[in-house]
Amino acid sequence: MSDCAAHLARLRETAPLVQHITNHVAMNLAANVLLALGASPAMVHAKEEVEEFAALTDALCINIGTLSAPWVESMQLAAKTARHVGTPWVFDPVAVGATAFRRETAARLLELKPTAIRGNASEIIALAAQGSAGRGVDSTDSVEAAEQAAIALANRTGGVVAVTGPVDFVTDGKRQAKVANGHALMPRVTALGCAQSGVVAAFLADTEDNFEATLAALVSYAIAGEIAAQRAQGPGSFAVAFLDTLYRLDGQQIDTYLRLEMSDEI
Amino acid sequence: MSDCAAHLARLRETAPLVQHITNHVAMNLAANVLLALGASPAMVHAKEEVEEFAALTDALCINIGTLSAPWVESMQLAAKTARHVGTPWVFDPVAVGATAFRRETAARLLELKPTAIRGNASEIIALAAQGSAGRGVDSTDSVEAAEQAAIALANRTGGVVAVTGPVDFVTDGKRQAKVANGHALMPRVTALGCAQSGVVAAFLADTEDNFEATLAALVSYAIAGEIAAQRAQGPGSFAVAFLDTLYRLDGQQIDTYLRLEMSDEI
Amino acid sequence: MSDCAAHLARLRETAPLVQHITNHVAMNLAANVLLALGASPAMVHAKEEVEEFAALTDALCINIGTLSAPWVESMQLAAKTARHVGTPWVFDPVAVGATAFRRETAARLLELKPTAIRGNASEIIALAAQGSAGRGVDSTDSVEAAEQAAIALANRTGGVVAVTGPVDFVTDGKRQAKVANGHALMPRVTALGCAQSGVVAAFLADTEDNFEATLAALVSYAIAGEIAAQRAQGPGSFAVAFLDTLYRLDGQQIDTYLRLEMSDEI
Repeated sequence: MSDCAAHLARLRETAPLVQHITNHVAMNLAANVLLALGASPAMVHAKEEVEEFAALTDALCINIGTLSAPWVESMQLAAKTARHVGTPWVFDPVAVGATAFRRETAARLLELKPTAIRGNASEIIALAAQGSAGRGVDSTDSVEAAEQAAIALANRTGGVVAVTGPVDFVTDGKRQAKVANGHALMPRVTALGCAQSGVVAAFLADTEDNFEATLAALVSYAIAGEIAAQRAQGPGSFAVAFLDTLYRLDGQQIDTYLRLEMSDEI
Repeated sequence: MSDCAAHLARLRETAPLVQHITNHVAMNLAANVLLALGASPAMVHAKEEVEEFAALTDALCINIGTLSAPWVESMQLAAKTARHVGTPWVFDPVAVGATAFRRETAARLLELKPTAIRGNASEIIALAAQGSAGRGVDSTDSVEAAEQAAIALANRTGGVVAVTGPVDFVTDGKRQAKVANGHALMPRVTALGCAQSGVVAAFLADTEDNFEATLAALVSYAIAGEIAAQRAQGPGSFAVAFLDTLYRLDGQQIDTYLRLEMSDEI
Repeated sequence: MSDCAAHLARLRETAPLVQHITNHVAMNLAANVLLALGASPAMVHAKEEVEEFAALTDALCINIGTLSAPWVESMQLAAKTARHVGTPWVFDPVAVGATAFRRETAARLLELKPTAIRGNASEIIALAAQGSAGRGVDSTDSVEAAEQAAIALANRTGGVVAVTGPVDFVTDGKRQAKVANGHALMPRVTALGCAQSGVVAAFLADTEDNFEATLAALVSYAIAGEIAAQRAQGPGSFAVAFLDTLYRLDGQQIDTYLRLEMSDEI
């Protein structure tokens, strides 16, 4: 059994509680993805309860896809609590390059040192302040073009950074890996990237190696996408098959499908 | 035709308008479940319009899954209006044990005497103030352990209380029943419980017996789940099949599948 | 290739960015519908960023399904910006007849001259202030009964008005057309009408004829529904098939299925 399969087995055994402050488009899918995988999602974002909940959750996922001023406050409170009690938290900088409000919110969240960051290439480039032209939520840059930005971000935050796309790239500033699995239908299902950030949080809930755990999350997700596409006729049936596949995903499938390019040194 | 089938036939004939103030994860599914079944859902939660709408709806469902201060105010306004004009309303105390904000909100809503309460075992125990340890939204207690809490709650509110799980339990403090239908995939689809609370509201819209109507809602839902699972390969295809099955559910299926344990006296 | 097919081909070529301020029930489906069709959706509604984003989007869709005071402010800011920079914007007056809050919000948005309005018959009648009795979000009036209201609205706003139902009606005050495609399962899937308003916005993003573009949006949608129904067993499988069908829809299917009643003069 590969390391990735072992991480997945541990996730199912511990069924971590994963608090989300995520966008309105992603909430339902993110919860279904985590339930299918074997984790326990909870969407909690009111400032009146966000700290109390963040102190008891096993992992936290913050996503700026659909911002509002009250939620920005809650995101900061939750991330501070997570950092204070030592709970891993994942930051998903959706469309961070599009508006000043997003850039400022992201900058303040970055100061709270996310355990991992997951975004598409345009988002990672914009977050590392290298001036991407991304307007919307879909990437207009290649993953390769974002590699240096990802390494710089990892060094700045001390966390893991994952750039997802046709080939995923993940780094902790010292190690890096590329995951060549996945399928072209994945970006045709809204919020599949956002939901993946919650999956990274779930894998980080109980691990001693954040890089390995994030990598296992990317691998599981991309392989599930690849298998699901075999019974898909378009994005509708793909999304259904994807949840079924996550639910049934096992170590043998991971070992069979895995196409990893690993390089320990940068 | 059983009583349950008669309640379902009446729902389809009257197509009740069911106002929801429900959580962000559940909204879409709850609306689709009601449309599939034959009712007419409406999500209306702004304090500027919530009383006006609550005065014209046929039933109301309030769910505290994703709280915020403005919505807590709207929930109270809507429940007060429903009570004032005699419209049935259902309370779904999602994750009520997790934070003080939820406990306080729930306590105030309980004072407005919900016509029915539907929750999982951990939620019903926490609501009855018996100190459950539930952290997240998924139950950590058995339905059986929540029976006394349910009866106590029913006596306190004068309403019906339903505890859903592998075997559902429903009581109005005088009568009780258990529904042994359902399927293990149901808790793997997010918000399926939340959507069920809306279904209870729809069944309560036009009935002379709230206990019987709630029981019919539980039975229809659990049997639809059981039938849907026959064509499911996981939670994704289950959710799709569940909506199809609700749409086609008929009295003969209910009579064929029904596994009810009834006991009129407590 | 018909005009409708040409409009669809152009949409896929340009992949327009379509900003939505839409309701909580519709957000996920609206995004998936646009992605399946080939456009790029973005849900952005905070007043802190709504003008900045509206200045860079290719089209805007505003939907009052789940209102709140902060969003009403954002809707006005976004529509004003769209009008100022000349970006097409679509107004979807969900349940406008139900409450004073909706009527007042809609009246103010109408003053900002939407490029197109799309609603069901009850909504269009209520919006034209002809006193519909619609309580909820589902239509209680026939499309035919809304034709005069649609023409009056089109003349008042100078824009296109579409009434969708069993047979869709569209007019710009001078021209009119009826689309006889579609399927009875479509109103059984929540927010399918709301998502259609986003599709109209996507078709309007790059066109010289707003009437023709709106008509092409209605035609594509209704034909996709008709084809999808062939593999549906109920509203669950219909929704899945509908996304697959939008993804694969081609000009030949449009030409084969099209049932248009066109009349250039009113």
